[in-house]
Amino acid sequence: MTAPQINGQRLLDSLQALGRIGALPGGGVNRLALTDADALGRDWTVAHMRQLGMCVDIDAIGNIVGTYPGTEDLPPVMMGSHIDTVRTGGLYDGNYGVLSGLEVVATLREAAMQTRRPLAVVVFTNEEGARFQPDMMGSLVYVGGLPLSDALATCDAEGVSVQAELQRIAYQGTAPVGAPVVDSYVELHIEQGPVLAQTGLQIGVVESVQGISWTEFTVGGQSNHAGTTPMTLRHDAALVAAQVAVFVRELSARLGGRQLATVGAMRLSPNLVNVIAQKAVLTVDLRNTDSAALAQAESDLHTYAQQAAQAEGVCITARTLARFEPVAFDPMVVNLVEQQAQALGCSHQRMPSGAGHDAQMLARVCPSAMIFVPSVGGLSHNVREHTEPADLQRGAQVLLQVVLALANRPS
Amino acid sequence: MTAPQINGQRLLDSLQALGRIGALPGGGVNRLALTDADALGRDWTVAHMRQLGMCVDIDAIGNIVGTYPGTEDLPPVMMGSHIDTVRTGGLYDGNYGVLSGLEVVATLREAAMQTRRPLAVVVFTNEEGARFQPDMMGSLVYVGGLPLSDALATCDAEGVSVQAELQRIAYQGTAPVGAPVVDSYVELHIEQGPVLAQTGLQIGVVESVQGISWTEFTVGGQSNHAGTTPMTLRHDAALVAAQVAVFVRELSARLGGRQLATVGAMRLSPNLVNVIAQKAVLTVDLRNTDSAALAQAESDLHTYAQQAAQAEGVCITARTLARFEPVAFDPMVVNLVEQQAQALGCSHQRMPSGAGHDAQMLARVCPSAMIFVPSVGGLSHNVREHTEPADLQRGAQVLLQVVLALANRPS
Repeated sequence: MTAPQINGQRLLDSLQALGRIGALPGGGVNRLALTDADALGRDWTVAHMRQLGMCVDIDAIGNIVGTYPGTEDLPPVMMGSHIDTVRTGGLYDGNYGVLSGLEVVATLREAAMQTRRPLAVVVFTNEEGARFQPDMMGSLVYVGGLPLSDALATCDAEGVSVQAELQRIAYQGTAPVGAPVVDSYVELHIEQGPVLAQTGLQIGVVESVQGISWTEFTVGGQSNHAGTTPMTLRHDAALVAAQVAVFVRELSARLGGRQLATVGAMRLSPNLVNVIAQKAVLTVDLRNTDSAALAQAESDLHTYAQQAAQAEGVCITARTLARFEPVAFDPMVVNLVEQQAQALGCSHQRMPSGAGHDAQMLARVCPSAMIFVPSVGGLSHNVREHTEPADLQRGAQVLLQVVLALANRPS
Repeated sequence: MTAPQINGQRLLDSLQALGRIGALPGGGVNRLALTDADALGRDWTVAHMRQLGMCVDIDAIGNIVGTYPGTEDLPPVMMGSHIDTVRTGGLYDGNYGVLSGLEVVATLREAAMQTRRPLAVVVFTNEEGARFQPDMMGSLVYVGGLPLSDALATCDAEGVSVQAELQRIAYQGTAPVGAPVVDSYVELHIEQGPVLAQTGLQIGVVESVQGISWTEFTVGGQSNHAGTTPMTLRHDAALVAAQVAVFVRELSARLGGRQLATVGAMRLSPNLVNVIAQKAVLTVDLRNTDSAALAQAESDLHTYAQQAAQAEGVCITARTLARFEPVAFDPMVVNLVEQQAQALGCSHQRMPSGAGHDAQMLARVCPSAMIFVPSVGGLSHNVREHTEPADLQRGAQVLLQVVLALANRPS
């Protein structure tokens, strides 16, 4: 069976169309999870699935699964990703995986082709974690890694719960969580990093995902007048927060190699020029492909934070927002991605994923892997996120061929 | 002429009454300048002045001056302060100076006493600078240190101007700015620091005010994914902001003595756990009683900020929000405060003011000084700001006697 060719223009058009929902002035997209913009994006995607004759199911955490029947009643091969974005996101992160999955189905449908196993395209809820933590929430619940009730009770910074927002936007469905049981999972995604762009390679064969640790520290100091309080009598929450942020960069340098460490969010209160901060809340994002090194980074961070707080006479508490061990993908699926990239004449290399993805959750329950395409300048979570059309089309064709091979393979 | 006794309970009652306007749940006050709460506080104070038979004038920057006539047509002796607060302020900062001035007038009126010179009680606009910078705005305009048009054009963080807010709350008056020309100025204030409380002294004879330098830094970095961007390729605005905050503490330790240095406000954007910050805005508050040392601190700060920005490959810009040289008060008025504290049997000491006050502006145009009373625990700009009733009453009695001496002295 010769593989049909995906319709590259149709794929680009649908990426643009979805990108108009929640579009930011001047470029980029804001479709934070479970907002009105996310709801409109979901409506558009569900309509797209129905136009392709897919059966659409929505579960209690809001995951959307569209199914295209196979010739046999077997567990489906699943494609997909997410359509929520960070507050200042781009057009491709997540959306590309979902819409390429739908393009694969559209291409097979036009060619009147059916695979042995059914095909499924999934939209997982709240992959970004930009509004509700942890990230990858929908896929984590899907594979049984987080109780549904815990996920539903999660609140955003304004105290609004996932449950309340799912009901408000009418995306709390009745399908059983974790259904269907899937045969295998392939996620096509932009790299969101500089590796492919810098090496000039076309396809990343993703064989692992680095581990992630997110911690929120709350520092409690004493608010006082900046002009009258001697330096030696201060209990300054902002200082300790800043010290932790500076330490985090030193930590990554000291551990070296693949240790990433970021303080992306910090809030002071009362946050006034002439008032010593009473409270500071900051987040630390640690990532490493090595499990032991990640644990070491966490341990060093907590030790430092306690020491800094003690030296300033403030209290500090830590809360884990997310914690995922490094993940290795299934060799059978990874090999298939490599073979199909090779067969299509694409330049490629095996690589780990720096970002967390829903695929790492699916890897707990079925053979899984990912396909990366280059990100221009390595930019992502940025309104200037961009991938060249030819790269987008090439990745979708690899996806189609991997999925054909998976869906038609003998049991 | 024997000095009459102020009515301590009446003073405490009026402090409580004004403190109910903009009261925060659980204690403290929020009457940020030119908000609805500030307007209600102004209405209450103007009504209070009128009940005392004072003539009330409001100028184009919203300063309120109540005048109680003297026996001769001479420039008045002025008392007062401000009634705006920080976002989480207390009952006494500013309010105590204004309401003690009104208590002095009430006491003299009850005693049917008139001084040679008229007495004026002033409420200066936006002393705190918590919403609009610079702080001490009303008094600075009053003495000609800031053009009225510049002050009116100043905007808060939401882009709302002083002019628009003055008009909205109906406090842009028609009295000439800088009128009346005053004979002398005495400001009674809580110390807002720990010196009197720690030494157990009752009255601070304030002979100087330390210099103030407020700078806002804006750091421009590159937003990117925290999980995929190698540490060596980052341009992290949050890191540089944190480095500046840590440096500021080191700077104060290095310069020693009376150098105060505070980072009280910091904002990151997009402020998300897994996104490298594109932008950071932070403020630095430097204070010193020594003019040369303050200039050295500023110079060192700017040098460091530029170096840190260059090392991270981000841009940094600095904007001066406020800059005031150290001020020495008039020896004649300072001596009078000391004599009257002595005459009343109060324990006292000469001291500088750590905070900026409207009195330092008035010192440019007339003989001025300040009287301090203790702050419990040195706390201020804090909802738990407190001064014992006996200290509040004692300070007001010193004020009355100083003002009597000033207002009745020969020309």
